[in-house]
Amino acid sequence: MEKTNVAIVGLGTVGTGVAKLLLDHGDRTARHAGRTMWLKKAVVRDLEKARGRIDLPEDVLTDTLDDVIQDPDITVVAQLIGGLEPARTIMLRLLESGKDIVTANKALLAEHGPELFDAARRLGRSIAFEASVAGGIPIIANISQCLSANQLQSLEGILNGTSNFIVTQMDEKGSAYADVVRKAQELGYAEADPTMDVDGTDAAQKLAILAHLAFGATVDWHDIPKIGIDGLDPADLRYARQLGYRIKLLATADLAEDGLELSVAPTLLRIGTPLAEVRDAFNAIRVVGDAVGPVFYHGLGAGQMPTASAVVADLIDTAVGRTKLTFQTLEYFSSENPPRAKQRDTETLLGRYYLRLQVANHPGTLAAIASVLEKHAISIASVIQHESESPDREHDPVPLVIMTHEATEGSAYTATEEIEALKSVTGPVTRLRVKG
Amino acid sequence: MEKTNVAIVGLGTVGTGVAKLLLDHGDRTARHAGRTMWLKKAVVRDLEKARGRIDLPEDVLTDTLDDVIQDPDITVVAQLIGGLEPARTIMLRLLESGKDIVTANKALLAEHGPELFDAARRLGRSIAFEASVAGGIPIIANISQCLSANQLQSLEGILNGTSNFIVTQMDEKGSAYADVVRKAQELGYAEADPTMDVDGTDAAQKLAILAHLAFGATVDWHDIPKIGIDGLDPADLRYARQLGYRIKLLATADLAEDGLELSVAPTLLRIGTPLAEVRDAFNAIRVVGDAVGPVFYHGLGAGQMPTASAVVADLIDTAVGRTKLTFQTLEYFSSENPPRAKQRDTETLLGRYYLRLQVANHPGTLAAIASVLEKHAISIASVIQHESESPDREHDPVPLVIMTHEATEGSAYTATEEIEALKSVTGPVTRLRVKG
Ligand SMILES: NC(=O)c1ccc[n+]([C@@H]2O[C@H](COP(=O)([O-])OP(=O)(O)OC[C@H]3O[C@@H](n4cnc5c(N)ncnc54)[C@H](OP(=O)(O)O)[C@@H]3O)[C@@H](O)[C@H]2O)c1
Ligand SMILES: NC(=O)c1ccc[n+]([C@@H]2O[C@H](COP(=O)([O-])OP(=O)(O)OC[C@H]3O[C@@H](n4cnc5c(N)ncnc54)[C@H](OP(=O)(O)O)[C@@H]3O)[C@@H](O)[C@H]2O)c1
Repeated sequence: MEKTNVAIVGLGTVGTGVAKLLLDHGDRTARHAGRTMWLKKAVVRDLEKARGRIDLPEDVLTDTLDDVIQDPDITVVAQLIGGLEPARTIMLRLLESGKDIVTANKALLAEHGPELFDAARRLGRSIAFEASVAGGIPIIANISQCLSANQLQSLEGILNGTSNFIVTQMDEKGSAYADVVRKAQELGYAEADPTMDVDGTDAAQKLAILAHLAFGATVDWHDIPKIGIDGLDPADLRYARQLGYRIKLLATADLAEDGLELSVAPTLLRIGTPLAEVRDAFNAIRVVGDAVGPVFYHGLGAGQMPTASAVVADLIDTAVGRTKLTFQTLEYFSSENPPRAKQRDTETLLGRYYLRLQVANHPGTLAAIASVLEKHAISIASVIQHESESPDREHDPVPLVIMTHEATEGSAYTATEEIEALKSVTGPVTRLRVKG
Repeated sequence: MEKTNVAIVGLGTVGTGVAKLLLDHGDRTARHAGRTMWLKKAVVRDLEKARGRIDLPEDVLTDTLDDVIQDPDITVVAQLIGGLEPARTIMLRLLESGKDIVTANKALLAEHGPELFDAARRLGRSIAFEASVAGGIPIIANISQCLSANQLQSLEGILNGTSNFIVTQMDEKGSAYADVVRKAQELGYAEADPTMDVDGTDAAQKLAILAHLAFGATVDWHDIPKIGIDGLDPADLRYARQLGYRIKLLATADLAEDGLELSVAPTLLRIGTPLAEVRDAFNAIRVVGDAVGPVFYHGLGAGQMPTASAVVADLIDTAVGRTKLTFQTLEYFSSENPPRAKQRDTETLLGRYYLRLQVANHPGTLAAIASVLEKHAISIASVIQHESESPDREHDPVPLVIMTHEATEGSAYTATEEIEALKSVTGPVTRLRVKG
C-alpha cells in the first residue's frame, strides 16, 4: 500500500488528538485515504513535557522544525500551533519547503489569510482548514462543496462553544456570569484568559472565514460589528424567557441586494427554533440556499477529539488529492479575485429589537417612551412592566421591557438615544436584536 | 475557460430542476467547478411533453439516447430516470460509452449497486449519488469524506419526507391517515401510489446505502426489518404524546460488538430531542462518531430544487475530478471487498417498548399482564389506563398503554405473544420501539 508521510507541528490539545487518531486508527485512515497515513514527525517546543496519554514512537517526537522542513518524504503537515507568531512564519516556511498544510488556527487565517493562501497558490501547495470553524461540524466542506449549486442567502451560527456554555448555564441555572466563567475554566471549556471567546472576537474571526466561503466577501474581521456576552445581564435572559425567547451569541451573515450584513451579538431567538435550543458547548449553523432551502448543522464546536476529527479528515482529503483540486478551483482569499459581496451599512437594516430600561414609576412615563418610538415609526409588539416590590414603590425606578416590530437599525439607534435622554429614564437602555 | 459538456437523461421533476440550475446559474457552477458546465443534451421519451417553466435551447432536447452515447464531448451525465428498468440498462450503456454518472435513483442503487459500481470501476468511470439519500442534506459526502476520521457508532434518520409529513399532520391536526395521504398527494409530497414511501421501502433502501457508507456493511435492503406508517393508529400518537413522546418513522443503524442492528419502524422519540421535532416533509440524520461525537443534520429531503442542488453539486465534483478520487479510494459496493460489519440478529437487541392493548375491564387484568412481563424480566416504566367512558363500563374493553424499561427484542416479542393469549386481552397488541 502507498504511504503518505505526515507531520504534526504543535502537540497541544488538538495535536495530541490528531496523533492519537493517526497512531491508534491506521486501518481507518488507510481505508479512507487509500494509502497508509504515517505519522513521521511531531514537532514540539519542549521534549520533556508530558503529552497526555499518547505513546509516541521514539523517533517521532522532535524539537527541531527542520526535521520536517528538510525531509522531502513528509508531504502533508498538520500545523497546530495557536496564535499569530510563530505560527505564521512556520506556515510560510512549511509551504516553501513543499508541504501541503492542514490547520485549525482561525485567528491566523482571519488575520493573514490572503498572504498565506497566495503563498500556497504561488508554490502550488494547498491549505485545508475545516477544523478552524465549528470544530466537529464540517461546515467548510459543506459550504464550499456540498452546497455549491446554491447562492447562499443567509448564514446564522452559534460559533463559540465557550460563550454558549456560559449563556446556557446562566439561563438554566440562574448563575452569575463570573461563577459560570470559573466553572467553564474548570471543565476545560474556557481558557485561562477567555477574553477572545466571550467578547465575540473568536466568533467574528470564524464568521469572516465563513462569509468568504459562502458569499465571496473579503471581510476584515475587525470590521464586523461585535458585541460579546461579557456584558450580558441575567435579567435579560429572564425577561427574554418570559417573552418566549432565549438569548444566544449569534453570528449572522445575511445577503441583501445592497450587500452583506454581518454581525456578532447576543440575540433573542424564539424558544423551540433549532438555534435557540443549542445548549452548552455545542455549535450549530443554519444556512439557507436558493435551491436547497434551509440546512441545519449541530455538533461539538471544539474539544480535542471533535477538532482532531476535522484535522484528520483534512489530512486524508489532502493525501487523496481532493484538497488540491478544491483549492485550485475555489481560489480562497485570492488577492486577485474581486469580492462578490460587500459588507453593507447597518443603518437601513431591518430588524426587531428588545429594549430594557429603568424608568421612574410615575404616570406618563410609558406614554413618553411610546411617543419617541412612534416618532421613529417603530411599533411595539409586547411590553413587560411589573409593579415595583419596593416599599417606596412610588419613587423607585422599575424595569420596563419592550419588544418592537421591525424597524431599521438606524431608527432603533436614534430612538434609543432619545429614550435615554428622557428625564423619566434612568441609566442606559439595553438593546438586543431579535430573530425568528 | 475550460468547458465540461453535461447531459441529463430523464427530464422529470428532478431533471427539470437540474436543467434550471445549469441554464440559469452558469456563473455559479463555473465558479465552483473552475470551468463552464455546459448542458449539451437532455434526453426525454416524449419531445412534445411540457417541461414546466424551463426554456431549453432548441438543439438540447432529444428523444434519442444515442445523441449522448455517441457524443464523446459529453463526459458527465445526470441519469434521472426513476425505477429499475430501463434506468439500469441506460446506466450501463452510459458507463460503457465512457461517461461519468450522477444519479438520484436510490431504488436502482439499493437493488443493483454492486453490479453498477463494479461496472464503473472496471470501465474507469465514477458514479456519484448524493441526491439518492435525504435530498438536500449532503449526508453521503459527510459520511464518506467529512467524518472519515471516525468509526461511526450509530446513525438514526428520518429519511422519508412523505411519511414524516403524514405523521406530523396526523399528530398535530389529529387527521385520519387516509385524509392526510390525500392532502400529501395534492401538495405533491406523495406520489399517486405512495406505497413505497409509507410502507418503509424507500427508507429501507436509503438505510441500506447509508449502512454501506457508514459501516462498510453490505446489506440487501430486503433484509432490513421494516414497518411502515401505513398501519399507524392515531391513538398511538395521542398516547405517545401523553407520555412525552412523538412517533416518527425512524431508520436506525447501531453498531454493536456482534454486528449492525438495522431497522425501519415507527418509533417513539422524546419530545424536545432534535429528531422528535423534525416536522412535515423535512428529513434529518443524527450520526455519532467515536471522535467527533454526535452530529445532527436537518434539511429538505426531497423536492425539485433541494434534490437538484445535490445533483448539481455532484456534477461539479465530477467535473473537478474529486468524485473520481473518492470513488477510486472508497471502492463502494465492491464485490471484492469483504463487508466490515454484518447485520446482527435482533433477538438479543436491547430496547424499550411501548405496548398498547385492549383489556377487559375487570380486576386482575393488569396483574396478569404485569406478571407476564415480570416473568420475562421486563420492568414497567409507566402505564396509562383511563376509566371507560362507555355506559357499559363494566364490560367494554378499555385501552391500556404500557411503557417498559430496557428489554431484549426476543423477550419483548415472546411476552407480547403471551399477553395476546391472555383471556382478558382482546385483539392484537401494538408494540413500538422507544428511543431517547
Ligand atoms: N482546543 C480546541 O478545542 C480547538 C478547537 C478548534 C481550533 N483550535 C485551534 O487549534 C490550534 C491549537 O489549539 P490547541 O487547543 O491544541 O492549543 P494548545 O493546547 O495551546 O497547543 C498549542 C501547542 O503548540 C505548541 N507550540 C507553540 N509554539 C511552538 C513552536 N514554536 N514549536 C513547536 N510547538 C509550538 C505548544 O507547545 P508546548 O506544549 O511546548 O507549549 C502547544 O503544545 C489553535 O489555533 C486553536 O485556535 C483549537
Ligand atoms: N422528486 C424528488 O423529490 C426526488 C428526490 C430524491 C430522489 N429522487 C429520485 O430521482 C429520480 C427521478 O425522480 P423524479 O421525481 O424526477 O421522477 P419523474 O418526475 O417521474 O421523472 C422521471 C423522468 O424520466 C423520464 N424517463 C423515463 N423513461 C425514460 C426513457 N426511457 N428515456 C428518457 N426519459 C425517460 C420520464 O420521461 P417522461 O417525462 O417522458 O415520462 C420522466 O420525465 C428517481 O429515481 C427518484 O427516486 C427524486
